[in-house]
Amino acid sequence: MESSELYVFIVDLHALTSVRERERLASGTLEAAADFLALGLDPDKCLFWVQSDVPEVCELTWILSTLAPMGLIERCHAYKDKVAKGIEPSHGLFSYPVLMAADILLYQADQVPVGKDQKQHLEVARDLAQKFNNEYGETFVVPEPAISEATAIVPGLDGQKMSKSYGNTIPIFIAGKELKKRVMAIATDATPVEAPKNPDACTLFSIFKLFAPPERLQEVRNLYLHGGAAYGYLKLELVDLIENRFAEARRKKAEYLANPDWVRAILKQGAEKARAKATVTLDLVRDRVGLKY
Amino acid sequence: MESSELYVFIVDLHALTSVRERERLASGTLEAAADFLALGLDPDKCLFWVQSDVPEVCELTWILSTLAPMGLIERCHAYKDKVAKGIEPSHGLFSYPVLMAADILLYQADQVPVGKDQKQHLEVARDLAQKFNNEYGETFVVPEPAISEATAIVPGLDGQKMSKSYGNTIPIFIAGKELKKRVMAIATDATPVEAPKNPDACTLFSIFKLFAPPERLQEVRNLYLHGGAAYGYLKLELVDLIENRFAEARRKKAEYLANPDWVRAILKQGAEKARAKATVTLDLVRDRVGLKY
Repeated sequence: MESSELYVFIVDLHALTSVRERERLASGTLEAAADFLALGLDPDKCLFWVQSDVPEVCELTWILSTLAPMGLIERCHAYKDKVAKGIEPSHGLFSYPVLMAADILLYQADQVPVGKDQKQHLEVARDLAQKFNNEYGETFVVPEPAISEATAIVPGLDGQKMSKSYGNTIPIFIAGKELKKRVMAIATDATPVEAPKNPDACTLFSIFKLFAPPERLQEVRNLYLHGGAAYGYLKLELVDLIENRFAEARRKKAEYLANPDWVRAILKQGAEKARAKATVTLDLVRDRVGLKY
Repeated sequence: MESSELYVFIVDLHALTSVRERERLASGTLEAAADFLALGLDPDKCLFWVQSDVPEVCELTWILSTLAPMGLIERCHAYKDKVAKGIEPSHGLFSYPVLMAADILLYQADQVPVGKDQKQHLEVARDLAQKFNNEYGETFVVPEPAISEATAIVPGLDGQKMSKSYGNTIPIFIAGKELKKRVMAIATDATPVEAPKNPDACTLFSIFKLFAPPERLQEVRNLYLHGGAAYGYLKLELVDLIENRFAEARRKKAEYLANPDWVRAILKQGAEKARAKATVTLDLVRDRVGLKY
C-alpha cells in the first residue's frame, strides 16, 4: 500500500450520535489523535484530520441523502443493533450510513478497509456512488472493500472477538495494576498445570502469541503440548510483554497529551490537505446537481 | 414589521428532493430570484440569498439530527403526503424537516411566517431548539409562528385553495393567451346573466376582488346582487386587470432574466450577509457540542 494515499480521520460528527457530553467529545477527539500519533502514524505520509474540520462532508451528506432511497437506509442493520443496545434512536443515528458514504465519496476513495460488520455501510456508499453517476454523469469513484487477510481477529478476555461493546478489551495504553487486572481476567480452563493442553484453543495463548518473541513462543507452545504451562505465570509474563511493547507509545502519548497544541496543529494541517481534496469533489458535485445557478 | 430583519432565501437544497434535472434546478433558482426582485423585494432592506450558498446550514442539519428523536421526524405528515403524491421516498425527503429547522435556527429567527400546512415543521424547529438548549445550555432562539391574519387564502381556478400541486393556479408572470386561457377556466356556475348571484360564494368574484379598483368592485358587486353580472365579460376584464397589475413586474423580470449576472451578484452579496450571521451561530454550536477540541 506504500504507493497509495492513506486517509485517516477521527469521526467526531458520527460520535455525536452517542456522545452528548461536550468535554468527553472534545477530549476524546484529542485523545484518539494522540493514540494514532503515538502508535506511529506519520502525518506527513498520509492525510490525518478530524471529520468536522472538513464541513464539506455535511453538504455532500445532504446531497447524497436526496438520492438515497429510504428503503436502502432502513435496511441497514447497525441502526437497529445500536438501538437494541440502548442508544437513543435519533435521526442522526439513522442517517449514519449517509454521512459515512459522504466520508468515502468526498475523497474519491477507491479502497476502503472494512470489517465484516461495516460491509453493509460500504455497500450504501457504493450504491449511492453508482446512483449519482447514473443520474448525473460519471462523478464518483465507486469504492471497493479492502478486507485484509492478514488481519486476525484478536480475542477478548472472554474469548469472544475483542470489542469495546463487549467490555472485554485490553486497552493498548493501560499499564501497571490496571493492565494486570485485565490480563488476569483472561478466561482460562481448569486443566492442571502438568496436563497437556491445546494452545490453539486457548484465549491466553492467542493473545500471548501476539506479543512473545518467536523462541519464547515455541517454548510456551511446547509447555502447552507436553504439560507445564502455568496460566498464572504466563499471564504475569504477558503483562510484562504488553507493557514493554507499548512503553514507547505510552510515553509518546503522554507527551502529546501534555502538549495538545502539537496535536491540534497536526490535525489542522491535515484538515487543510483533506479540504483541498474535498472542495474539488464538492465543486464538481454542486455543478452536476444544479446548485450552480 | 419595518423594525424587524427579514430573511428570504431560495431553498435549492430542499428542491433537490424533488428536482433531479440540473438545468431545471439551476434555472429555477435564478427565476425564483428574479420573481422576488421583480415583485419589489429590496435586497438592501433584507437578507436575500440562495440556501446552498450558506453551506453551514448542512453542518447544523447534521448536528440537529443527532438530537432529533426518530419519532419526531416520523410523525411529520409532509413526507407521507409527498410520497402519496408520487415523489420518490428518499432519505432527503424524510430529513426535510431537519434541514428546515436548521434554516430557521441558524439565523436565530424569532418569527417564522408559516401557513397552516407548515406549522408542524416549525414545531420540529421549536422542539429541536428547546432540546438543544436543555442539553447544552441556552444557544438557540425558540422561534414563534407568525400567521398573518391579513393573508387571505386565494382560491384557485376550481375554487379550492390555489396551489401548484392542485394545478389550479394563475401564475403571476404569465400574460396574453396563456393568461386568458387560465382565467377563462375559472369555474363558474350556470346562473343566467340577469339572475341575482351571491358574489361571496363565487370564485371568479373572489379573484376579481384582488385586482379591481374599489369603485369598480362595488359596481360589480351590485351586478351580482341585482342581476347583470356576465361571467364571460368579467373574465375578460380580469385578464386585463391582472395583465396591468403585473406589467411592470413582468418587464422587470424579463430584464433580470436577460441579465442573470445582476441577479447572481445580488444573491452572492446576500449570501455573504447571511453567512456572517450563520457562522456566529455555528461557531457557538460547535463549541457547545464539543466539536472544538
